[in-house]
Amino acid sequence: MRKPMHSNGRFEAMEPNAMTGGTETLLDASFLGRALELAWRAAGRTHPNPLVGALVVKESRIVAEGYHKRSGLAHAEILALDEAGRAAEGSTLYVTLEPCAHKGKTPPCVDRIISSGVRRVVACTQDPFPHVSGGGFEKLKSNRIQVDVGCLKEQALLLNLPYFMRHLGLGSIVTLKIASTMDGRIASVPGKRDAITGKEAQLYAHRLRASHDAVLIGVETLLTDRPLLDCRLLEDVDPPVPVVLDANLRFPEDYPWIKEGRAFFVCCGMNADASKVQQVEKTNGRVLRCKMEAEELDITNVVSTLEGEGVSSILVEGGGKVFSSFIDRNLWNAAYTFVSPLFFGEEGVAMYRKRFANKEPGAFPVDAFRVGDDFLLRMLNEKTRSELLEKLV
Amino acid sequence: MRKPMHSNGRFEAMEPNAMTGGTETLLDASFLGRALELAWRAAGRTHPNPLVGALVVKESRIVAEGYHKRSGLAHAEILALDEAGRAAEGSTLYVTLEPCAHKGKTPPCVDRIISSGVRRVVACTQDPFPHVSGGGFEKLKSNRIQVDVGCLKEQALLLNLPYFMRHLGLGSIVTLKIASTMDGRIASVPGKRDAITGKEAQLYAHRLRASHDAVLIGVETLLTDRPLLDCRLLEDVDPPVPVVLDANLRFPEDYPWIKEGRAFFVCCGMNADASKVQQVEKTNGRVLRCKMEAEELDITNVVSTLEGEGVSSILVEGGGKVFSSFIDRNLWNAAYTFVSPLFFGEEGVAMYRKRFANKEPGAFPVDAFRVGDDFLLRMLNEKTRSELLEKLV
Repeated sequence: MRKPMHSNGRFEAMEPNAMTGGTETLLDASFLGRALELAWRAAGRTHPNPLVGALVVKESRIVAEGYHKRSGLAHAEILALDEAGRAAEGSTLYVTLEPCAHKGKTPPCVDRIISSGVRRVVACTQDPFPHVSGGGFEKLKSNRIQVDVGCLKEQALLLNLPYFMRHLGLGSIVTLKIASTMDGRIASVPGKRDAITGKEAQLYAHRLRASHDAVLIGVETLLTDRPLLDCRLLEDVDPPVPVVLDANLRFPEDYPWIKEGRAFFVCCGMNADASKVQQVEKTNGRVLRCKMEAEELDITNVVSTLEGEGVSSILVEGGGKVFSSFIDRNLWNAAYTFVSPLFFGEEGVAMYRKRFANKEPGAFPVDAFRVGDDFLLRMLNEKTRSELLEKLV
Repeated sequence: MRKPMHSNGRFEAMEPNAMTGGTETLLDASFLGRALELAWRAAGRTHPNPLVGALVVKESRIVAEGYHKRSGLAHAEILALDEAGRAAEGSTLYVTLEPCAHKGKTPPCVDRIISSGVRRVVACTQDPFPHVSGGGFEKLKSNRIQVDVGCLKEQALLLNLPYFMRHLGLGSIVTLKIASTMDGRIASVPGKRDAITGKEAQLYAHRLRASHDAVLIGVETLLTDRPLLDCRLLEDVDPPVPVVLDANLRFPEDYPWIKEGRAFFVCCGMNADASKVQQVEKTNGRVLRCKMEAEELDITNVVSTLEGEGVSSILVEGGGKVFSSFIDRNLWNAAYTFVSPLFFGEEGVAMYRKRFANKEPGAFPVDAFRVGDDFLLRMLNEKTRSELLEKLV
């Protein structure tokens, strides 16, 4: 994976690059970063296909770009090669995922890459999909195309985490999405709704929602913030199904989802009041009875109950008590923390409510960057990361 | 500043790049990012010169790199051009600061750039030093070299903030350096010393120390952590002078600095016990009597008192009470927050101790990236940023 930066080999042991956090070469990381960014634009629109972005680069200039826009439509590589035309000859193709070697709804991408005269393919990871998995790279190599794999691999895993988990047999996924101030507060005072992050971070968060089957919050957050949990900043995506952790069924009768006719789940305890259950089930909501653990819902049971309902990816959006439960049980696979350059102080609500519990959640820091006026810190659960990378080698 | 990514102009309105947080073109930002990284290696060694890094790039390949290693030694541009040799002809020179047009300890860089046949110069910012300020760019332009300025400008300001402040007449600077967990805690329980960040973050922090005249902490932190506040991970740098905020002179008699014979300042209140003052002044420490404000030292007065002692750049390293004072008075110019992917919970010590005070400290989020196993979030005070950029245009 680590290549000299230029031909004389003087930079073979290149120092970590502050901009990418890795040791990958500057240009490969820059171009793949751009391809990942393009791919992300279609979040929520490509299921069951993964998000993929591609660039055709010749003499270090981008000559064409493409990303997979919707299931059934052209693959990223094909769009980029179409746009490149004859300029593809002798070029490098940057692509976020291994190109396919099988005929699905569209013909195999590798054949097109070969016939276009591409000289080198740089990809973040192998495709875990059984019909591709390694076969795409093999075919390219046997046609004397140079193949380099592994640059920005964690970023590529994050881009399509439910897809990787599913095809590698690792089951359903839980993603934490936290929005906090610089001092780790998710609200300025208890019971108050505060807009912490800006517009760009919200757009990013809506793309995260569109990439998950369900979005989960605690009933405290529901009652305080009354969030819609939709994807209104995006067009042409299905919003995730809302899930509310609500042990004693405090779910309000007038919640907007009822009027909208939007399906939602309310998870309550085994002994929750039957009349309250009836009340929710008269609407478009469904009540799921889950096990309790002390005074709280057993979230391990919540996740498996949701799995039984066909929910295989859950975005957890708070509040602090809910985050704490998932963090303490190490029941998460990826975490996105948006940090706004504000300070709320000690009356603010903490994102993590336990008392000096799990000191090591086993988080692998993937990367961090600005999103508008906020920062975004992205992590992969260390266990998830090693399981995925092991299966991909 | 915003240029099309390639000649057909299709990417003129390029979207923000997640890797750089800006709208600069991908390659310019990547190469200048690398140059900034190189420059940073000499932190603490170039005073009174600024840190500068440079790359010679030809056909989008790095053919040579250089950075200013020490005052009196060659400038970054010259080192890179020396290494490039004849390959510099027709190249692009990436440099973090405007090349000099005057003869200092070394001959003017612009003459060498012109005679080397460089075709384009890409720089982050103008040099505020009166003998250069704009003159370097002018001379390059009048020799038909294309000059592009402004890409990663905030990063370049951070790299040499004391230098910019001094030459633009904005006075002394205060930098905050915070190390916290994901949930905003700077220790797991009060009174306990916790190693929060890893080795790479520590190295970065030592470079920050080496770039400042003084490093300031509260006496609570001194008594709890007993930090040395040195730069032991770096060679050939002068460590900053330690400053302790210690209103009632609790400074311990056996502190390591005394044995080491290292100079340090202790700031106490006007009414601090005279015998305690004597006790400190018998060592290599000096006591500075400062104004009080309620029960605390008036930090505005502390900063100006230190200025009177020739300290024009202060790195504030905590603890929470000290950070809070500087944040609340908006008495800071840059802030570096290292965030470790840990959670300490509600018994942990908060980085910001006030109760819902200043909601808007006016922080401009510059960038964020991984440093080893931690994240680093970098901010410029919004007021500082606009004052600097105004004077540089």
